[in-house]
Amino acid sequence: MDTVSRKTDGMRRPTIKDVAERAKVSLKTVSRVINNEPSVMQATRSRVLAAIAELDYEPDATARNLRSGTPFVIGLVYDNPNPYHIIAVQNGVLAACRETGFGLQIHPCDSTSPLLAEELAELVQRSRLAGLVLTAPMSERPDLVAALVARGIRVVRIIAATEDPGDGPCVYIDDRDAAYEITEHLIQLGHQRIGFLWGGPQHRSSAERYAGYEAALNDYGITLDKHLVIPGDYTFDDGFRGARRLLALREPPTAIFGSNDEIAAGVLAAAKSVGLNVPYDLSIAGFEDSPFSRQSWPALTTAKQATEDIARHAARLLIGSLRQDAYAEHPLGLSNQGFVPQLVVRGSTGPAPLPRARAASPSSDEA
Amino acid sequence: MDTVSRKTDGMRRPTIKDVAERAKVSLKTVSRVINNEPSVMQATRSRVLAAIAELDYEPDATARNLRSGTPFVIGLVYDNPNPYHIIAVQNGVLAACRETGFGLQIHPCDSTSPLLAEELAELVQRSRLAGLVLTAPMSERPDLVAALVARGIRVVRIIAATEDPGDGPCVYIDDRDAAYEITEHLIQLGHQRIGFLWGGPQHRSSAERYAGYEAALNDYGITLDKHLVIPGDYTFDDGFRGARRLLALREPPTAIFGSNDEIAAGVLAAAKSVGLNVPYDLSIAGFEDSPFSRQSWPALTTAKQATEDIARHAARLLIGSLRQDAYAEHPLGLSNQGFVPQLVVRGSTGPAPLPRARAASPSSDEA
Repeated sequence: MDTVSRKTDGMRRPTIKDVAERAKVSLKTVSRVINNEPSVMQATRSRVLAAIAELDYEPDATARNLRSGTPFVIGLVYDNPNPYHIIAVQNGVLAACRETGFGLQIHPCDSTSPLLAEELAELVQRSRLAGLVLTAPMSERPDLVAALVARGIRVVRIIAATEDPGDGPCVYIDDRDAAYEITEHLIQLGHQRIGFLWGGPQHRSSAERYAGYEAALNDYGITLDKHLVIPGDYTFDDGFRGARRLLALREPPTAIFGSNDEIAAGVLAAAKSVGLNVPYDLSIAGFEDSPFSRQSWPALTTAKQATEDIARHAARLLIGSLRQDAYAEHPLGLSNQGFVPQLVVRGSTGPAPLPRARAASPSSDEA
Repeated sequence: MDTVSRKTDGMRRPTIKDVAERAKVSLKTVSRVINNEPSVMQATRSRVLAAIAELDYEPDATARNLRSGTPFVIGLVYDNPNPYHIIAVQNGVLAACRETGFGLQIHPCDSTSPLLAEELAELVQRSRLAGLVLTAPMSERPDLVAALVARGIRVVRIIAATEDPGDGPCVYIDDRDAAYEITEHLIQLGHQRIGFLWGGPQHRSSAERYAGYEAALNDYGITLDKHLVIPGDYTFDDGFRGARRLLALREPPTAIFGSNDEIAAGVLAAAKSVGLNVPYDLSIAGFEDSPFSRQSWPALTTAKQATEDIARHAARLLIGSLRQDAYAEHPLGLSNQGFVPQLVVRGSTGPAPLPRARAASPSSDEA
């Protein structure tokens, strides 16, 4: 009878295009009927509604939620072990929500769950969320993002990238550039053996920060010693353990770059646990400029990541796109934006110790 | 014509009782009509609906939200400067939400705002929240709680109290008892001059912790020296500043009890900044058992407050009361519950230094 497959005929979900074809009207007309706009003739409206019923078509989740008169609420999805970081992200998103009268639902999750797309889709439907702000590592899983978009869920991603990947709404943080700067700072202080402690490999930021470290060593002609590079997660405990391993090397590093401030805090504790004086015996740098980095003794050299601003921009991007639908007269008119964390030098980094200061070895008299 | 005042006649809002009187039916019948239950005769239903319209009566917010088919979402209200604490509270509430399919909206606020009741009522209405978990200090402002309850908003409070105050659903934490234990621990280590740094005075927990400190000194016959008690807030910075003041005294304390772990972390930094060795020169205790207390060097003696469990119980209490309305067959059957934080001894507290170890004064030879 027609070429449009019914939902029951196969896996493909009917689209708005199928409805338009079946009702023999334009896409815009279907959209007007769905949005209950008055400018559609009754006969046309009936034809569209009949096509929607016959095809068992469901308009996308976002449109449905906006139309239903449900309060405007967005969701924030995260899987991050660092309370300071999460609170900063929440506060940034909340700032955008407050500007626009939106509410915020939070949804910590397990980023490794194979059913994450289903879990998030159910969350959006059950709580009628207008859209999601996805943080890393969820935001950096193309399969997950595609599955959500296919379900008609509007997402904005916060990702680590040197430039806009051009595949949808996002805020991107140039972790590589900032990590390069930190490493360069250590090299310029005379450090040649610089340890690097990775964050969680599922976060693209970890690889980006490592790439910045590697590039700086390379540019300054320092050979990368693989023994100085330790895998781990973005936690204090992994910082402590990793630093203990590095400090037990026959030739320990004179500086350690922890991939975030929690890791660096663990390095600081490890240094104290073996009686090292920071920064005289060992320089330590972190990443993020969390409150802890200012409160430790000595305070940590780090890269100031404007986490609240980044999260706020992501939420404004999401809300702006929703309002363009709902209130076309008040678009926020925002676009994707990049952020580069800035080097902040504090007391935890200093000149590399002279060789003789570290060990009274025969070779030390060369200094 | 009748004795029931119209909404426009005065400030008093019409109640369900007014509707029942006007329609000449029982309260239960009005409730059945509001809840759209089938067991009401059509004539009765019409009379009740007419009375509701004439009185401009609005059923309470919770009932309205549950009835409207809106997703079940509760709100968490807080004003606390401590990220670790907030994340623990959120995680506890989220655990209860996950058990029951509820969503969680978060709402940090300014506890000193004179319009807080209006702000929260608007939040509940706009986001159609089924109820609120109130943390301190909001939970400890009787005027605010009364204003919310008067608006038909269901609240469960997390408060500091030695026993159930018996004025509504709450979870109460016996901060006083735990603070007594910490102070006793310090006294038993030989400390006689024990500094105390207050948390924010708007939190009842601050006064309770101070009361525990005072009671322990009293029981052990130690005269309270007012110079050793410093006001402040639950922050690292106030801990740092307060400790610097105490350590600059002509007769400084040999131990400092910070009202929470953030304050104690500030004390630790202050001690290091003046070259003191913890715990040999100075013992330090905190309160809460936050991750920081385990990560500092040395780790902090503290009172383990089961923040996640406390928050989870509060949320279950709230959700249970909602479900008793909505699903009378599945009440969670919970009641108010008290928690007593437990002393955890770690490396930051040790024996009081002998007088001669602190200053080579003439009186030191008495030791």
